[in-house]
Amino acid sequence: MTEPLFEIEIDKPAKGARDAGDAIYRQLKAAILDGRLPVGFQLPPSRRSGSVFGVSRNTMVAVYERLWHEGDVVLRRGSGAYVAEPPPRTPPPPESPEPSPPYARLNTFWLRHEVKSALGFWRLAGDDAPAAARGEIDLRPAVVDQGLFPNEAFRRAMAQQLRRLERAPARLRSPEGGQGSHFLRAAIARQIAVTRAIACRPEEVIVTAGAQQAFDLLARTLVGAQETVVAVEDPGYPPMRVAFAAAGARLVSAPVDADGLIVEALPADTNVICLCPSHQFPLGAALSPERREALIAFARRHGAVIVEDDYDGEFRYDDGPLAALRAQDAERVFHVGTFSKCMLPGLRLGFVVVPLWARAALVTAKNCLDWHASTPVQAGVAAFIEEGQLTRHVRRMRSIYGRRRALLLARLRDEFGDALAPIPSTYGMHITAELSPGADAEAIASALARDNVNIHSLARYAFERPASPGLVFGYGVADEAALDRALNLLRKVLNG
Amino acid sequence: MTEPLFEIEIDKPAKGARDAGDAIYRQLKAAILDGRLPVGFQLPPSRRSGSVFGVSRNTMVAVYERLWHEGDVVLRRGSGAYVAEPPPRTPPPPESPEPSPPYARLNTFWLRHEVKSALGFWRLAGDDAPAAARGEIDLRPAVVDQGLFPNEAFRRAMAQQLRRLERAPARLRSPEGGQGSHFLRAAIARQIAVTRAIACRPEEVIVTAGAQQAFDLLARTLVGAQETVVAVEDPGYPPMRVAFAAAGARLVSAPVDADGLIVEALPADTNVICLCPSHQFPLGAALSPERREALIAFARRHGAVIVEDDYDGEFRYDDGPLAALRAQDAERVFHVGTFSKCMLPGLRLGFVVVPLWARAALVTAKNCLDWHASTPVQAGVAAFIEEGQLTRHVRRMRSIYGRRRALLLARLRDEFGDALAPIPSTYGMHITAELSPGADAEAIASALARDNVNIHSLARYAFERPASPGLVFGYGVADEAALDRALNLLRKVLNG
Repeated sequence: MTEPLFEIEIDKPAKGARDAGDAIYRQLKAAILDGRLPVGFQLPPSRRSGSVFGVSRNTMVAVYERLWHEGDVVLRRGSGAYVAEPPPRTPPPPESPEPSPPYARLNTFWLRHEVKSALGFWRLAGDDAPAAARGEIDLRPAVVDQGLFPNEAFRRAMAQQLRRLERAPARLRSPEGGQGSHFLRAAIARQIAVTRAIACRPEEVIVTAGAQQAFDLLARTLVGAQETVVAVEDPGYPPMRVAFAAAGARLVSAPVDADGLIVEALPADTNVICLCPSHQFPLGAALSPERREALIAFARRHGAVIVEDDYDGEFRYDDGPLAALRAQDAERVFHVGTFSKCMLPGLRLGFVVVPLWARAALVTAKNCLDWHASTPVQAGVAAFIEEGQLTRHVRRMRSIYGRRRALLLARLRDEFGDALAPIPSTYGMHITAELSPGADAEAIASALARDNVNIHSLARYAFERPASPGLVFGYGVADEAALDRALNLLRKVLNG
Repeated sequence: MTEPLFEIEIDKPAKGARDAGDAIYRQLKAAILDGRLPVGFQLPPSRRSGSVFGVSRNTMVAVYERLWHEGDVVLRRGSGAYVAEPPPRTPPPPESPEPSPPYARLNTFWLRHEVKSALGFWRLAGDDAPAAARGEIDLRPAVVDQGLFPNEAFRRAMAQQLRRLERAPARLRSPEGGQGSHFLRAAIARQIAVTRAIACRPEEVIVTAGAQQAFDLLARTLVGAQETVVAVEDPGYPPMRVAFAAAGARLVSAPVDADGLIVEALPADTNVICLCPSHQFPLGAALSPERREALIAFARRHGAVIVEDDYDGEFRYDDGPLAALRAQDAERVFHVGTFSKCMLPGLRLGFVVVPLWARAALVTAKNCLDWHASTPVQAGVAAFIEEGQLTRHVRRMRSIYGRRRALLLARLRDEFGDALAPIPSTYGMHITAELSPGADAEAIASALARDNVNIHSLARYAFERPASPGLVFGYGVADEAALDRALNLLRKVLNG
């Protein structure tokens, strides 16, 4: 066979060009339509023509298949592709202007600047900068160091559980499946009884893909057809606000002071109150016992429900755990927990403890979202908990975080006393410190970013109220040496 | 120390009672408030009192902590819990009737019968029956047999990838993270180039928690503030319909015949068209080339977009893959793929190939849903693909499914020719066969369920149009022996 493909003009696409296949396709199509490649002509094997055109065989196969699909080529088994008889052409559809381009179909909520910015929350300061300028000291709150995780124990638990699942695969997408595996829900119930004083049955636990999916799930089930007013702490965690806004809630800003959320400031028509009672995010205060009582009373009086975000409740530094808010009212409090802080965020595993009256609706919604959390991950985490590995890891991290925290507090007090006032807290993986009124926290954070220190200013957390100037010192990733260096750099920046 | 707890009346809760801790708490609380347990009285250690009351130590700890939280007990380090001085009581809040009970806050969408029933789609016929009556032969479509999965290869890939992730943890929740790991997206792009003739870059792929999350994600980004009309195949896949309905779409029923979706029947104001062009679910027909052209032309003319559900496109039984619809129009087609059929549904991993104009909005929405898919699962599946395991597994399953399919078609033709007419198809893991007009498919399915055969009647898939009587024969789980048995039982039912 001669190689008549090369007798007609086919431009070789640029090496690695994205649309190489398309370019070849268009030329072949044109050659078939205008008769340069006649009916019955056999196209060369895809491997050969691909190598001539400098594209992969797969690309050529796709080109031929496209021509085949469009009726320009016929395939004969075992012999290859041939130019086909032209099909009887149907008249083209009447030309009419397109009423709207397809992108007009996008829900513009997701294009809003404030939504993108809120969901860019975890972005490192250097993410937009060239790689060389990327932060080397990470002071973001609520991030963890994989290097301190008992990776081998988790890997063993996963392998063991994968083997178990092979022998007894879970029933496919059973109604219970949506709620999460019973094995994991039982492990969670036992764990939070100890760490968070929550008495609940596995039936009250719904497993989610991290806390963010719990917020989305709650938003989609608690925000209804009528207007739903959702109070959020201000400052607070932006991605949680987006989940409720996306579901159509009317958000109202709830102010926060040293005793946590100011209950008296809640509008009487509030339907859902979202807060972090153990360790306000980002200020760090715990909701005082009086406020707790007042909050529960408010919810009872107004028929409201409470979403308790317990993102780092495992890490407390004084006398054992303070009970979660959920322990006070199992009828009105949805308690959201996560394995992102006490284990690893990449697992995407969390849970919500729900009042029983809401369970059916939440499980139905969870089914609609993604059926259920990934089975191997659920099993691996359950085994990790049941083997006592989680308790051991949390105990170890509490001591590591405790040392970092002590160093941070001591240096802030001794050297930065006139510039920075840490907000008292007893939980967590970060300390927030307020700057003197009028200080420019954003400028300080930017200056530190230039020094390869990633630190959040309080302004990142503001919703409707201007945030007081302050800095958030996370010690989940930064060790004592890194904290020391960061504080040295901060001193230089403050001195100016 | 005497044991004065036992001098006052404390009822021992029933063994294993759900609210045992609560019962003990209420009695202790009452005893403290009325002075039977005096100020300064030391409560016995939780282990001892727990064993006396027949509850776990954790339950007792939770009881003590609740009392502590409420100010009834003080904890002294290293010495235990003591009855506290009564706090100055604040006046109770004024009694006012609760305007609405908390459950009035539920979005009633999730309580609708048709929603629950659509999401109960994968439920086995026997799930509502006693365990003994549960189906032993599973003819549901699109379910797979874990026993045929190369479990060991996958376990090895997971372990290897967990080790890799330990050394080089992914950047935490970077903006790209929401789209899925580049490693997996590149593997998917290479895979679907071969199997589905889709030429796309990793940048066009978004990883999701299975196809269901892809539907939810698309619904939430394509359904906007104005009315959005979404055409769905009727009969079709109910859980996909729910995802769009939940986002507020107006669903319209699109009829289907032996050439797939009837494009001429689409209302002109249709904004989104959802369909399975390779293997209509559940009828099995492929969208004809003429209909494909007409569909693309319709979308161009009306500014509509297309959601292509390619749930089992890997399993084709004639001359190699037919191109996916996406290969014809990368600007208007969202191509949804899943690893639930070609690997395992419990992984909860799928993807959507998107037009680039929609990518930013979809990634932002995906961040809001759950940030990103579980990192270890993404890495394990990517390695499984890159090692060639997926191709090998699909090839093997294609031959296994091919034999099952051949047996099923032969017996249906030879023995059921007058009662059941299989709908021609070239793809997939199921065959749908129509019964004679007037036959009662639901009664036949119920009779088979009593014989431990789980089979779907076509009515399960109907949306607004009554389904013609028919049965769906899935062979993902049922092997040849099971198919033989099921057909023998079916013959008895039909003769019966």
